[in-house]
Formats: sequence, C-alpha cells, structure tokens
Amino acid sequence: LRTDGFAAQNKNNIPRLKLSYKEMLESNNLETFEGLSNSSSYHTFLLDEEKGRLLVGAKDHIFSFNLVNISKEYTQIPWLAAPNRRDECKWAGKDLSRECSNFIKVLQPFNHTHVYACGTGAFHPVCTYLEVGRKPEDGIFRLGHHVENGRGKSPYDPRLSTASMLIDGELYAGTSADFMGRDFAIFRTLGRHHPIRTEQHDSRWLNDPRFVGVHQISESDNPEDDKIYLFFREHAMDGEYAGKATYARIGQLCKNDLGGHRSLVNKWTTFLKARLVCSVPGSNGIDTHFDELQDVFLMSTKDPKSPLVYAVFTTSSNIFKGSAVCMYSMADIRRVFLGPYAHRDGPNYQWVPFQGRVPYPRPGTCPSKTFGGFDTTKDLPDEVVTFARAHPAMFNPIYPINNRPIMVKSDVDYQFTQIVVDKVEAEDGLYDVMFIGTDIGTILKVVSIPRGSWHDLEEVLLEEMTVFREPTAITAMELSTKQQQLYLGSDMGVSQMPLHRCEVYGKACAECCLA
Amino acid sequence: LRTDGFAAQNKNNIPRLKLSYKEMLESNNLETFEGLSNSSSYHTFLLDEEKGRLLVGAKDHIFSFNLVNISKEYTQIPWLAAPNRRDECKWAGKDLSRECSNFIKVLQPFNHTHVYACGTGAFHPVCTYLEVGRKPEDGIFRLGHHVENGRGKSPYDPRLSTASMLIDGELYAGTSADFMGRDFAIFRTLGRHHPIRTEQHDSRWLNDPRFVGVHQISESDNPEDDKIYLFFREHAMDGEYAGKATYARIGQLCKNDLGGHRSLVNKWTTFLKARLVCSVPGSNGIDTHFDELQDVFLMSTKDPKSPLVYAVFTTSSNIFKGSAVCMYSMADIRRVFLGPYAHRDGPNYQWVPFQGRVPYPRPGTCPSKTFGGFDTTKDLPDEVVTFARAHPAMFNPIYPINNRPIMVKSDVDYQFTQIVVDKVEAEDGLYDVMFIGTDIGTILKVVSIPRGSWHDLEEVLLEEMTVFREPTAITAMELSTKQQQLYLGSDMGVSQMPLHRCEVYGKACAECCLA
Repeated sequence: LRTDGFAAQNKNNIPRLKLSYKEMLESNNLETFEGLSNSSSYHTFLLDEEKGRLLVGAKDHIFSFNLVNISKEYTQIPWLAAPNRRDECKWAGKDLSRECSNFIKVLQPFNHTHVYACGTGAFHPVCTYLEVGRKPEDGIFRLGHHVENGRGKSPYDPRLSTASMLIDGELYAGTSADFMGRDFAIFRTLGRHHPIRTEQHDSRWLNDPRFVGVHQISESDNPEDDKIYLFFREHAMDGEYAGKATYARIGQLCKNDLGGHRSLVNKWTTFLKARLVCSVPGSNGIDTHFDELQDVFLMSTKDPKSPLVYAVFTTSSNIFKGSAVCMYSMADIRRVFLGPYAHRDGPNYQWVPFQGRVPYPRPGTCPSKTFGGFDTTKDLPDEVVTFARAHPAMFNPIYPINNRPIMVKSDVDYQFTQIVVDKVEAEDGLYDVMFIGTDIGTILKVVSIPRGSWHDLEEVLLEEMTVFREPTAITAMELSTKQQQLYLGSDMGVSQMPLHRCEVYGKACAECCLA
Repeated sequence: LRTDGFAAQNKNNIPRLKLSYKEMLESNNLETFEGLSNSSSYHTFLLDEEKGRLLVGAKDHIFSFNLVNISKEYTQIPWLAAPNRRDECKWAGKDLSRECSNFIKVLQPFNHTHVYACGTGAFHPVCTYLEVGRKPEDGIFRLGHHVENGRGKSPYDPRLSTASMLIDGELYAGTSADFMGRDFAIFRTLGRHHPIRTEQHDSRWLNDPRFVGVHQISESDNPEDDKIYLFFREHAMDGEYAGKATYARIGQLCKNDLGGHRSLVNKWTTFLKARLVCSVPGSNGIDTHFDELQDVFLMSTKDPKSPLVYAVFTTSSNIFKGSAVCMYSMADIRRVFLGPYAHRDGPNYQWVPFQGRVPYPRPGTCPSKTFGGFDTTKDLPDEVVTFARAHPAMFNPIYPINNRPIMVKSDVDYQFTQIVVDKVEAEDGLYDVMFIGTDIGTILKVVSIPRGSWHDLEEVLLEEMTVFREPTAITAMELSTKQQQLYLGSDMGVSQMPLHRCEVYGKACAECCLA
C-alpha cells in the first residue's frame, strides 16, 4: 500500500479520485433505480446474499432487487395503508400524502422462506410476513394475508425510525410506540414469551431516544450469556448536563431476560446503558464533542465475541457543522458495563459513581451457568431488580480507541450519515476500508493506514463519489462481500456501485487495487 | 443610512471595502510605529485625549505617542528589570529574553501630573510613578526614582495580564499574584486603606481566571453605591459542568468595601459573580456557546448608570473556530445580581438556586444610606459575611439583549480579539459602529442597523482593513473621539487609522460618511 504524499493531500481533504454523478454513470460505476412516482423513502434495506436479493422497504412498497444489477431486474409489491386508517390519519390532522401512507420500517429475516415486515400504516403500525421462497430460482415474492398489530415494532410517525433485529423468532426493536411519538422503548415481541420492554415514564432509562442500530454479540461460548446491544442517541439525563444536550449511548440487554417477578414485570431487568464519547482533545483541556450518533457498523475480528464498533457522529450545533468516525472495542465497552453505576441521591444531587454495596447477582449479568447460579431473571432477588430499576446508566463513559476519532471533517458543507466497512487484502496485509455516506448523496471511500503502529492511524481519503442525481441524504447502506458491491438508499431511490474502481486509476495502478 | 442590498452581501461575509496593508498605507489611511528591535508586546494602552498623547507599555519601554500622528512624534523611556532580578529569573529556569524582561502591564492615570506604571520586572513585579506634566506643552515624560513592589498589580509571568483601573487613588486589579501563576485575585491596593483581595484558595470565588476589563458604574446618585465590575473568563466551578469548560463572568464589588471584621478580614465582602452567556439558539434546542470572553467595551447611553456592554467571545474548541459579539444591558446584569445565589449542599450536590432565608443586609449590597442602615462592611453581621463567603456566584446567568449575539463569524480562519464602539450620527439618527480587532492583524468595521425595531438588528460588515505588516493578534485598541482615530497594539508595534475613510468610496459617497 503506497502512502507517499497522501498525508499532505489528506490535510487538504482532497480525494485522490473525485467522480461526479455523470462520471460515475459514464464509467459504468453506478447502477440506479430512480424510484416510483408514487413512492419515496427507500430507507429500509435487507440484504440476502444467499438468494442474491436486496429487499428495500419504502413508502407503500417493498422492492426486491437483483444484487448483480439493481437497475436490470427487480420486482415490487405495493403495500398500502388500509383506506379507513388513511381517513383516520387525515382526520387527525396529518398530511395525507407525506404522513398517511405505509412507510416500511422493518424488514427482518424470519425463517428460510419468510421475512417479517412492518410499516407505519398511516399512523397505525402494521406487520405481516413476506414470502420470499426457499431458493432464488423459486422467484417467490408475495405479502402474507395475515396483518398484525405493529405497535412496538414500527413507529407511527414516518419521520421516526426503528432499529430492529429478529433473532430466533423474536423481534428486538428500539422505536416509538405511540401516536404522539413520546413513548420510546426497546421492545421484544413475537416468539413464545410475553412481550417485554423498557420501563415506561422513566427518563433515566430512555430520554427521547433515536435508535440507530441493534446487534447481538456473544459474551462467552455459552448462549445463555448472549447479549443484545442497542445504539442510540438521546437527551442527556436530568442533572447530567446543565442545559440541553444530546449524548450517544450503547445499551445492553440479556437475550434470555424474561423480566422481573414482583417488580419490572414484563420489563427488562438486565438493561444498562453507557455514554459513547467521540471527542477531539483540546490543547486547552476543553474537548470538542461529536454527540449526534448517526450510524454504527460492526466489523468482525478474529474473535467473534469482540467485533470492532465503527460509529459515525455529527455535531449538535447548527453553527458549527462537523462529522467524525470513532472506533470502540468490545473490551472497553464491557469494562464500562462492569464498572460503577451512575447514582444520585435525589433531584438536587449530582450523578456520582455508586459507592455502596451492589446486590448479587450484579445487575446486567445474564442468568447463566457461567456467571451465576440462577436460571431466569424471574428468580432474581427483589433487591437486584429494585437496584436495576433505579440504576440503568453506567457512570463511566466509553472512550474510543486511541481516545480520539479516526476521522474528523469540519471544513465541508456536508455531514456524515452512514458507514460500512470492508476488509481489503493489500500486498502488505489487511486494511479496513470505510465507505461513508453523506447528507448530500456522496460516498467517501477512506482507508486507515497505521503510521508505524495501530495506535497512530492516518486516514487517507481515496475517493469521493456522487451516487444520486440530486443532493439527498444517504439513509441506508449495505455492502455485499460476495458481489463486491455497495447498495445505497435515499428519499429518491436506490443506487449501486462497485467497491473498487481499479480501471479508472489507469493501467499501472489497476493491478494494486487499493493503492 | 442606505441598507439596500447589504443583507445579501453580509450573508456572504463580504465587506463593502477591503483594504490590504499596502492599500491602507498608500491611501494614507494608516500610520505605523513598527517597534524597536529591543522591545515588543505593545499591549498596554493609556489614552490621554486632554494632553493629546497615547501612552503605550511594552517590553522594557514606555512610549508616548502624539495622537495626531503616532509615526511623526513620539518619545520613549527604557524601563528595564534590575540586573539582579534578571539573574534570579534566569536561574529560576525562565527564558532570559522572552520572560526575564520588564513587560509593562499597568498604565493608569494617578493624578493630573502622574501615571501609575507597573511591569513584570523579570518575574518580580514592580511599580513606579511616571511624570507626564500638567499640560501638553510641558513635554515632561520621565520615570520616578521610587520603585515599589508590584505584587497584586502586575503579574509575574509576561504571558498573563492585568485588568486594572485606578480610581480616587486606589488601584483595582484582576491579576495573578505569585511566581507560579496560580494565585489569581482581584486586589485593591494603594490609597489609605489596607490592601484588600478576593478569598484565597477557594475555587468558588475564582477558578483560574483571565481578566479582560474593569469598569466603575454608579448604581444611584449616591457615590456610596458605586460599584466596580470586572469582566473575566475562568473554568466552570466544580459541579457546574461535567468535564472542563470555560465560562465568561462579570464580577461586582462595592467601591466602599473595607472587608469583614471577624471573617473575610481584608477580603471583599461584596464580591459576587455571574455567568455571561453568549450563545446561538439551535433549532434542536441545543445552543452553540461562545464562552471565551476576549474583550469588553462599555458604550455610554443617556443614563450614565446604564452603559451598554459590548463583549467579544470566541469558542473553546480547537476544531471549530468562531467568534461572536454579544450586547448586555445593565438592567439585566443588576437583575441577576439581585436574583438567587448559586448554592449547593456539598460536593455531590448540584448547584441550585438558594431557597433559604438570605441574611440582611443582602450580600452584595453596598454600605450606604440608600439601601441599608450600616456604615461600613466591617459592621456587617457575621451571618452576612459567612453567607457571602460561601455564595460568591449567582445562580442565573446573564443573557444578551435579544437572547442572541448581534454578530457571529464562523466561516473564517481568524478570531476576534478586541472591540471598541463609536457612536456615529447619520441622516436618520445615531448608529453604533463597531471596530473589531482580529488575531490576524485586521480590523472589521461593522454597523448594526435596526431592521424595523431595536429587537431585530442586522449586522453590516462595512470594511475589513489590514493594519499590521504581518499577521499578528491585535491586543490593544483605543478610540479617540476627539481625533476621530483608532490606535491598535500588537506584539509587533502600534498602528493608527482614521475611523472613517470617506474618500475611498468615491466622491458621491464621501458626503454620507457612514453610508
């Protein structure tokens, strides 16, 4: 990997290759689906590499694209809100075309033949099963007849979103669960257990959150210890900040949490959250914070229990616009969840690390043979549940690897919205290549090059490509390793581009694809 | 005053007139004193309009310039640190040329014939009396032989500064009073009373402050109520902010404060401080703060008890550079000092408005026939002094007029450092014209034009002028109304420019000087 002279370029934020929308099309580096006139909001992606399809949830439609070329072959299913729901939505004072439609918010694989799909249903969330067949050649793509209540799965308001994941027949979803958009919660629905959620009306648990991702990460080789991690941003807790501020958070749950017995009944008993800090240290000791978490990507490592967490942040200020990428290790995340709980004695107190006796088993621990001698959260001692209820937040924040962002952009008129990361083999080893989506319809391709050591990374901006005809925020991004393609969603449509464009660098360079 | 089309220009930050250093010289709009080879740091200004002189304190020298033309006629007095002090300074590990000199930090009018002058004296502050004669034609300009200790008047370290004011034979000074630069305080020295200062080793009173200005403002027609106001920035108090932050402050003192009798002996008993907020409201409810107070200018109004406070701020971030000008009314400032005191019950508590019984007379009130029945602060009841000692800060901050800055600059590679304001009569009334100094040796001339009402001001950037040969921070600024000239100091030298440059706008415009 040749890095000579890149540092200077990078300082000036000049990419080695900059391709306009027209140049992308002309060089065969872009395939596009420019949307239907009666649809929009191509925001919900489900990549199925086995069947070679990309499912996209949009306004009133679900699409199935061929991963090889999205513009060549696709099918679509209209899924409209029921007429009576549209009428009710309109009567409630909502905008008929912009709000009273069925915006698809959830597309999660249910089993080998079905996908679970949910939409806003004109401010009346609905879900159903989408049949996709067992094999690609089956060509099956149809909606089920049975429609069920989508509360706690899709938001009511199309401007809100759901971060969801369906595992073992159970749907984990961070979303808004009421018409007014006030009751935000993390739900587990479907499956054989009673639905379970976060404590309601307690701003210590969740404070007007916006969810950006859900992931399952194992803690040990025993599946009983499996945890679900949620990434979101929310208002700082009362007393955590003087004035209003947004903080980025990671929340954890045990997959086998069944709620409490006397207290926290059908509520999570293992929910904990911690602040994710992404800040640049200041020479004066005052850090510049990026708190508006926008997206998260988990990059696998040799240890499946310890993926690397890539996260994209923007600033909260509307005067200073900037974006940053921070990287977190699971070791640091787990250390904070095993550290002191945030505690305060009352409204006029500050949040301090809890110094008292923590009840046993330590709240946040999963019922398992590995760590404790109890079988289910329903068996937890009352004092554990009471403590958990009052201490959902950890005192220590999680700092990024190297204590600073791996990338900061502050001198441009756009902000980051999405990230995916690819592992690329170069002559001298494996490199992480980031694809970053922006709010003006461009993709940045960036590589981190260790400058001597892992603790001193240098970002090199390789390419900047425009992938939508008009400036529009990139709201969905999926990477197919098998196809070596990137798929991008926005309000306007869906675009597809190859991960690498070796040919445009000229013949000599085409051989070393990353160089 | 013609404003057509200025709004659009202003949005793009394009001044109507931009003059380079060369253009300023060639158009006779700039007179310069380019400094002595054995001096620097022309930072301490004393304008004497009556005698037509500008005194400038610099490294090892005091200068006296002719206000008509600083480059034509000036005299200088060398004032070096004593050789033994220079040796001690060097032995203490300081840099001989950059630190072990006598940097003049205080030049205050003592009486009609003398100016009180203080310097760092090679990390050993010294003061003396400078004889300037009774009348301009006397031509007297000489240092006194008697040198006294300058502790509590000039800082030890030349990088630190003093904000000072000499009134009725007493010197009020906010400065650093020890070799290590740790003991910052507000002092009153000279005069017939025992020196008095702020409480030591109490970060609630002052927390690593940097003083930028001192002003006397009367509260009533009774001189007993006269107050001294200090402007500074400092670290937020413990518990006021999670993490490190700078806050801008205004502090108040009674001129007739003589300290306490049993407690706070030879310490201020009437010291109170409040936060000055200068922030832009965000659409998301999150404000963008400008906290690094740089300079303050008091603009007189019809009511001498209520000058307008113009203040220049920059950001604390080293990623996002921006500057703002905020304007405060004395009514708002006094209301906050009459409001609740900031209180907390202990280290783990939050700061809250004090709800209990405030002792009488209310701490911060001056001993006077107007407001209370006590003659001197030495007669204050013990409980008043005890309360004052523990409650130096007000709970409510002071917000700027209209709750937002009158000017913000965030898209430029420079920051504001200094401000002076001139009142200019145009055809349709009086306008405030701001002259803002920057850290790259330029002056911005800006006028606030009411857009319909006083509550909707529009800033128009009239001129941008380079007044130093090389980019250097403007660190001192004085405006002579009589001469209609502006005087500017920096590390490099002193510059002078006329307030208005009507001729360069062309003949037609020359008549309406402000237009």
